[in-house]
Amino acid sequence: MTDELTSAQREYAGLVIREGVNLTPGQKLLIRCPLERADFARLCAEAAYDAGAEEVLFLWEDDALIRMKYLRAADAVFDRAAPWETGMLNDLSAEGACQLAIVGEDPDRMQGVDPGRIRRARAVRGRALEPFRERQTRNEIQWCVCAAPTCSWAQKVFPALTGDRAVERLWEEILRACRVRAQGSVEAWRTHSAALQRHVETLNALRLRSLHYSNALGTELTVDLPEDHYWAGGAERCIRNGIYFSANLPTEEVFTLPRRDGVAGVVYASKPLVLDGTVIEGLRFVLREGRITEVSARTGEKVLRDATATDAGASYLGEVALVPWDSPISQSGVLFYETLFDENAACHFAFGDAYPCIRGAESMDREQLLARGVNSSMIHVDFMVGTPDLSILGTTEDGKQVPIFTAGTWHDLPKA
Amino acid sequence: MTDELTSAQREYAGLVIREGVNLTPGQKLLIRCPLERADFARLCAEAAYDAGAEEVLFLWEDDALIRMKYLRAADAVFDRAAPWETGMLNDLSAEGACQLAIVGEDPDRMQGVDPGRIRRARAVRGRALEPFRERQTRNEIQWCVCAAPTCSWAQKVFPALTGDRAVERLWEEILRACRVRAQGSVEAWRTHSAALQRHVETLNALRLRSLHYSNALGTELTVDLPEDHYWAGGAERCIRNGIYFSANLPTEEVFTLPRRDGVAGVVYASKPLVLDGTVIEGLRFVLREGRITEVSARTGEKVLRDATATDAGASYLGEVALVPWDSPISQSGVLFYETLFDENAACHFAFGDAYPCIRGAESMDREQLLARGVNSSMIHVDFMVGTPDLSILGTTEDGKQVPIFTAGTWHDLPKA
Repeated sequence: MTDELTSAQREYAGLVIREGVNLTPGQKLLIRCPLERADFARLCAEAAYDAGAEEVLFLWEDDALIRMKYLRAADAVFDRAAPWETGMLNDLSAEGACQLAIVGEDPDRMQGVDPGRIRRARAVRGRALEPFRERQTRNEIQWCVCAAPTCSWAQKVFPALTGDRAVERLWEEILRACRVRAQGSVEAWRTHSAALQRHVETLNALRLRSLHYSNALGTELTVDLPEDHYWAGGAERCIRNGIYFSANLPTEEVFTLPRRDGVAGVVYASKPLVLDGTVIEGLRFVLREGRITEVSARTGEKVLRDATATDAGASYLGEVALVPWDSPISQSGVLFYETLFDENAACHFAFGDAYPCIRGAESMDREQLLARGVNSSMIHVDFMVGTPDLSILGTTEDGKQVPIFTAGTWHDLPKA
Repeated sequence: MTDELTSAQREYAGLVIREGVNLTPGQKLLIRCPLERADFARLCAEAAYDAGAEEVLFLWEDDALIRMKYLRAADAVFDRAAPWETGMLNDLSAEGACQLAIVGEDPDRMQGVDPGRIRRARAVRGRALEPFRERQTRNEIQWCVCAAPTCSWAQKVFPALTGDRAVERLWEEILRACRVRAQGSVEAWRTHSAALQRHVETLNALRLRSLHYSNALGTELTVDLPEDHYWAGGAERCIRNGIYFSANLPTEEVFTLPRRDGVAGVVYASKPLVLDGTVIEGLRFVLREGRITEVSARTGEKVLRDATATDAGASYLGEVALVPWDSPISQSGVLFYETLFDENAACHFAFGDAYPCIRGAESMDREQLLARGVNSSMIHVDFMVGTPDLSILGTTEDGKQVPIFTAGTWHDLPKA
């Protein structure tokens, strides 16, 4: 690893702490990280203490040990959540600690694992982590997802490169996607975030009622947006303390939620996605009155089908996100096999839990949100649908038709 | 790392699981390990699943992050125990899960840290872990401490070697000390364990009342042994299920406990010890009626003094262990800065908690044990006192004097 790369990683760690979670003095920080990237977790911890963290805590993950457990542990294990890990996430989020997830998992770590074990473990973990998930989804805490390459992930992305070289190459892509440079990374990030904010303002001013997606892959989908929805993107605001934070580094998206029962048609994924350590290729959903009624995929169909059956909300959509086909991540031409990146290279949806982008949501409980069309689930799985020929046509509340995307990218919208 | 070394590590991992904790099918295993030695933890996990483990769980430690926390976290942090970690140790030990600790810490990791923070953190952690510690001390669970080299530890032991070479050299010493060979390691370990058992039987047959230690360092110490004490060494027996296990790999010791109020004189350490990440050199204690009344040390005196003041029992001795000066670890000439090894190179004592080596202890509570002279504390710290000229003279219950050690090693004792 060159000195230059190490210093760029330190710059990224600083960006993650200052602009990602935006930790303020006296706050705690919980870092989830692959064991293999403890070096990067240490840089983040240093940056957090520099910012005045009260304490930095850790949850470590290891693909090899997780895979070993799924293949070899006793069957009953998959019907129990690990109370210490879920307790840590629930308790620290209740205290208002910042949460930083460093992703870097092997996209194939669950290859050959019994899908029933994955499904059962996801269900018990989902239930056990409900308090944490709810606080994160509602932005009651400052949280951020960033990335650091493990060797198996890097080799999946760059199969022609060997271990260390693949890791270095993936580091370069991650740092570029986050606009990290020798200096001024924070300013570059803020400029980018402000640009996303301008798209948000334009969309909000349009007061859209629905979107219609179509492309040559075969997607023909109408997505109704709930009353009082708003678009978000760039920095978000923690409702507990008003602090702005960036939930994803990188991010290129502007997003809102669909009305739970207002999605109809057929949609095809334009990129693979990794779900519970399984690569899903060729996803196709048919939806009626919001519900996914047909599921198919070329690879990983069983895992995908199980995921949409996790709970009642898992077969409804929870996110509508717009990303131009010519975003920097898309232009890199790299398929990352990691949602944090691939979702930022293409327009996407998620099935499962919705971010409650409804005005007044802070004071509504889950029942009230549901009545307003906000889906709820213990899962939230993004899938990419953007293509170079994607068109998205909007219909406003007063029935006017407005092109939002043409040829895969922003149509020249009227300024807000 | 050579293939030969990797295969020896795999052999060691198998030994640790089969002879160390002696895991039986359906049992859980908790592994505590430095992040940096995840490779060895994975080998142990594989061996555990081979032996039929229900599930293997992990607690990860990192010297750099621990040091960073002690230097930079807010002061209040050191008056709180981490409930998730202590919960994991307490809960899993209550279920009867096997416990494997892989030690490998940087002996200097706490250099320059405020001793007050170390003392306070030790006290809260000690109180929080009382249930776990008690189960371990009483052998209510199968437990084992083994070792794997981290880079900083290896470089402290072999300062003339650089990173990887130091780690390989320390691996070689660890494997040799545990009698690991290409094959037959289990048989070699059992033979060694049986030899320790023969010393145990000889000592138990003598029915000793007290021991007197003396050497040219200046040690002149009389140690009374409680009524109904017994000596132990080699394999121990879990009182919950009767399974034999080896609590330390390596081990060369035969040990019992002193009578709490029955130690008097002066004692000098013959090797440094590492206490809470601080190297203590030149330890000297004066004891009266069992209590340490004078404490001094050339380095780390404050940390040592604080440790003996942790609680009421911390200033009394809790272990008497006999190790010949010509043990293989001693003959290696290596100073390990790690008690697991250095205690097996020399006779030693511990201050703090006593292993209740009293007949009938299983059915006694802590008060009853105390009345029988069994010390209790939240700490247990070994310190080495053996020298090539150490003599230990025993006095039996009927007043006969028997030489136990002469010139640092076993006197030719009558066979049991």
